[in-house]
Amino acid sequence: MKNSRIIEQIRPFFEPSSVVVVGASKHVDKAGHVIFKNFVENKRTGLFKGELYPINPREESILGYKCFPSISKLPVNEIELVVIVVPAASVPQVMMEAKEKYAKAAIIISSGFSEVGNRELENEVKRIAVEGNIRVLGPNCLGVYDPTSGVDTLFLPVTKTLISGEEVIATPRPKEGSIAVVTQSGAFGVAALDYLAGRQLGISKFVSFGNRVDLDESDLLNYFLHDERTKVILMYIESVRDGNKFVETAKNVSRVKPIIVLKTGKTKAGAKAALSHTASIAGSDEVYNAAFLQTGIIRAQNMNEFFNMGKALSMQPPARGRNICIITDAGGPGIMVADECELRGLKIEGLSEESFRKLEIMRESGQIPKFASLSNPIDLTGSVTSDMIVKVTEIVYHDKKVDGIILLGLHHVPGLQEDYVDRVALIASSREKPIVVCDIGETEMALYVRRKFEKFGIPAYASPEEAAYAMYALCYYGEYLNSVNR
Amino acid sequence: MKNSRIIEQIRPFFEPSSVVVVGASKHVDKAGHVIFKNFVENKRTGLFKGELYPINPREESILGYKCFPSISKLPVNEIELVVIVVPAASVPQVMMEAKEKYAKAAIIISSGFSEVGNRELENEVKRIAVEGNIRVLGPNCLGVYDPTSGVDTLFLPVTKTLISGEEVIATPRPKEGSIAVVTQSGAFGVAALDYLAGRQLGISKFVSFGNRVDLDESDLLNYFLHDERTKVILMYIESVRDGNKFVETAKNVSRVKPIIVLKTGKTKAGAKAALSHTASIAGSDEVYNAAFLQTGIIRAQNMNEFFNMGKALSMQPPARGRNICIITDAGGPGIMVADECELRGLKIEGLSEESFRKLEIMRESGQIPKFASLSNPIDLTGSVTSDMIVKVTEIVYHDKKVDGIILLGLHHVPGLQEDYVDRVALIASSREKPIVVCDIGETEMALYVRRKFEKFGIPAYASPEEAAYAMYALCYYGEYLNSVNR
Repeated sequence: MKNSRIIEQIRPFFEPSSVVVVGASKHVDKAGHVIFKNFVENKRTGLFKGELYPINPREESILGYKCFPSISKLPVNEIELVVIVVPAASVPQVMMEAKEKYAKAAIIISSGFSEVGNRELENEVKRIAVEGNIRVLGPNCLGVYDPTSGVDTLFLPVTKTLISGEEVIATPRPKEGSIAVVTQSGAFGVAALDYLAGRQLGISKFVSFGNRVDLDESDLLNYFLHDERTKVILMYIESVRDGNKFVETAKNVSRVKPIIVLKTGKTKAGAKAALSHTASIAGSDEVYNAAFLQTGIIRAQNMNEFFNMGKALSMQPPARGRNICIITDAGGPGIMVADECELRGLKIEGLSEESFRKLEIMRESGQIPKFASLSNPIDLTGSVTSDMIVKVTEIVYHDKKVDGIILLGLHHVPGLQEDYVDRVALIASSREKPIVVCDIGETEMALYVRRKFEKFGIPAYASPEEAAYAMYALCYYGEYLNSVNR
Repeated sequence: MKNSRIIEQIRPFFEPSSVVVVGASKHVDKAGHVIFKNFVENKRTGLFKGELYPINPREESILGYKCFPSISKLPVNEIELVVIVVPAASVPQVMMEAKEKYAKAAIIISSGFSEVGNRELENEVKRIAVEGNIRVLGPNCLGVYDPTSGVDTLFLPVTKTLISGEEVIATPRPKEGSIAVVTQSGAFGVAALDYLAGRQLGISKFVSFGNRVDLDESDLLNYFLHDERTKVILMYIESVRDGNKFVETAKNVSRVKPIIVLKTGKTKAGAKAALSHTASIAGSDEVYNAAFLQTGIIRAQNMNEFFNMGKALSMQPPARGRNICIITDAGGPGIMVADECELRGLKIEGLSEESFRKLEIMRESGQIPKFASLSNPIDLTGSVTSDMIVKVTEIVYHDKKVDGIILLGLHHVPGLQEDYVDRVALIASSREKPIVVCDIGETEMALYVRRKFEKFGIPAYASPEEAAYAMYALCYYGEYLNSVNR
C-alpha cells in the first residue's frame, strides 16, 4: 500500500508530463541555462515528451520558449515537476507557488541550506512540501538524469571549451542501460557518469539526492525495486538517514535486485571529512557493515570495486555456490586470480571427475597442449588456440560442480584469435552460471577484445584481480539469494 | 668487485656488439622469424647498432641477411649475444658452439626444460654455460626488450591481424623511460608492456628471466642498481631463488632506487597454481613479507597497485614524512581519499597555523568560496576556479608541516579550466615534496587532464583510492630511506 503510493509519487521525477524550470536563464554560464537547454534539446529530438516552461521575471523568452515571471503566471492550473535553480532564500516562495499549482514533484538544485548551517530555511521548505504534498529531491543536489525519458537536470554541460578553444566531452551522459545510480555526493555522481559513459556502460536512471529534505536513499531504493529498466542499483552514501527504514527497504530490494553500496567516511579522517561535506554523521563503520550484511547489500571498498562489481551484476546471473574454475592461457595472471579468489573466500576446487577425464583425453590426443595444467587454474599455456579455449570452456560450463568461470584469454599469444569471444559468448548465452573474463593491456587489441565481450553481456576486466572480485560479488549475491529463498 | 664483474657480464644482454639468432626463420608464424625481424627492423632504423647473424641450416638468407648453418660456421671468431629459439633438445649443442665462439651471453627462449620436468637437460645447459663462462637468461623466457639499444627478443609481434583482416596493436613496446620491468612470468611481462605502452609510461629495460638457470632476480636487481636509465624497478615473481642473496641485494638497491614487487602465489590456491606454472615453491607468504619489510621493498597487492605505485615512484620524490594534505573540489571523492589514506596509515593532520591563517584570509576576502572547508581535506567546493586551486596548492606546497599533497581537480565543475595543470606543475617543479593528482572520468577531458599532468611528471589517477595508495608508496619508501640513512 504505502509502497505503491510512494512509487507513484516518485514517478513524476522521471516521467513528468510537464516541467517548469524556475531560474531558467539565457546566460550560458548559469546553471538555469544548462538545465533548461537540456530539456529544450531533448524535446527537440523527441526524447523528452512533456510540456516545458521557463520561469524568469527578466526574460520574455528563452531558447524560443515563452518565459513566465513566476509559477503563478503560468497558463495552466496544474504542473508536475518543478526544477528550482534560484538562490536559497527564494526557494520557499517558489515552493508556495508550486503548491498553488498542485505540483507533484520538486527538484531543488539550489544550495545554501543545511549543508552550510541554514537548517531553518530547509525546514521551511520541508513544511511547504508536506502541506502541498510535493515530493522533493534536494536541496543541494544535481537531481535526475533519465536517458529514456530525457529528463536531465544536470547543470554541468556535456562539453567544456578548453582555453585553446577546443570543445571536449567533459560531463557525458551514459546511454540507456540497466544500472541505476543513486548518490548523495553530486561531484561523485557526475564522475560516475563520466566513468560509465567512457566505459560504454548504460544506466537506467541517475539520481543525486543531496540534503534529502524529503526523499532519501531508502525511498529511491524502493522506487528502483519496481523500476523495470533497473537490474542493479549502485549507491554512493556518506550516511543513511533512517537506519530502520533503510534496513527494511534494502532487504526487500535485495531479494529481487542487487544493491552495491560505496559508503564513505569509514575512517576517522573520512568521517571528519564527511561531516564537513554534507554534515553527515558517518556513524560507526561496524554498524554499517552489520546492516549491509543483514540486508544482502554488497559493499564496495573503493571506486573501482563499485563499478566493476556493478558491471558484473548488471551483466551476469548470480552464482549458485562458491566453487570457481579459472581457465587461462597465461600462468602468472592465473595465479593472480587464484590468489584473489582465495583472499575473498571463493573456492578453487577442481572439476568433476567426468570433466577432468574429458580434459585428460583432450590432452592425450593433442587437442590441448601436452603441458597444459588440468588442475584449477586450467592453464592452456601460450600454445593456446581459439578452439582449445572454446572446447575447454564448454566442458567447464556444463560441469555441475562449477559455480562460475573466470576466463583469462590474454590476446598476446600467437594462436588466439578474437573469434573465441563470439564462441564463448554463445556457450554462456544459456546464462546457467556466471562467467567473467580478463584480458590485460591498454592498447588496441585488448580494448577490442574487452569491448567485444561486453557487447555480448560478458563483463571483461583489465586486471586479474578485478575479474576475481567481480566473481566474488556474483557469488556473494547468489549466496544471499540462497539464504533468503531457503 | 664481484658486483662490478656481474654488471659487466650482464651488459651484453642489453648492448651486444653482435647478436646471433639461432633458429631464425622465414616463416612468419615462427618465433625465430619474429625475433630476427625485430633486430632487422631496429638495425634498419639505426636503433640497433650491433652485428646481426641468422643461423638456420635450411636457409641461404633471411630478410636479406646471409644465413649460416651453425654458429661454428660464422665468419667471426667471437660473438657476444646468442639468442636461442630451437627445440629444447638442440640447445646443449648450440651452447657448445657458442662456447667455441667465446659468446658472453645467451638468451634461451626455448621451453621444454625444468618447467616440464626436464631438469637434466637444464642442468646440461647450465654446465656448458659455466664452463664457457656464458651468462644465461632463461630458458623458457621472453628475454630482453631495450628501447634504447634496440635489443628485442620478444617473439610476439607488435601487431596481430584479426580474422576480419584488420591489423591491430597487440603487443606494443613502450617508449623509453625510467621504469625497469623484471618478470618471472613471460605472459605477465607482455601484459605489462601492453599496459605501460597504452598508458604512455616509458621503460628503461624489460627482462623476462623464466627458469633462471643462471641469472636470477637478484642479479638483475644488482644490474639495475647501476643502470643509469632506471629510476624504479618493477618486479613480478612467484618465488625467489636464493633468499639470502635476494635480501642482501635488495637492501643495497633500495637505498638508491625503489623496488616494487608483485609476489604471487600468496594463498594456498595461488601457491598451488604457481607450482604447476613455473615449478616454483612459493614459500610462506609471511617469510616474503618479512623479507620485503627488511629490504625496503614495496609490495604491491595486485596488478593495479603494481603499476600505479611504479608510476608514482618513477615521477615523484619520496615523502619525508606521513602527513598528507588533500586539496579537492569534490567533497565525496575527498572523503574517499581521506579514508584510503587512513587505512594505509597515512596522517591527515591539518596545516601549520600560518598556512591555515593564510587560507582563512583568502576565504574572508572571497578569494576562495565562503563555504570552503579549510580542515584537511581542504574542500574548495564546486565553485572552484583555476586560480583558487593554484593559490591554495602553492600555500600548502610550501608548508613545512605537510609531507605530500593529493590534489583532486575533478574537471566537471564549471569554473575549473585546464590551465591549472600547468600552473600546479610549475609549483611542484622544485620537487621539494611529492604531489599526486586525481581526476575521475573516462571521456575526453578527464583523459586530457590526466595525460597533461603526467607530461609534467605528476602522476595522475582515475580514482581517489589509487591516488591515495600511490602517495602511500611515496611515504613508505621515504620512511625506508630515512631509516637507513639515519
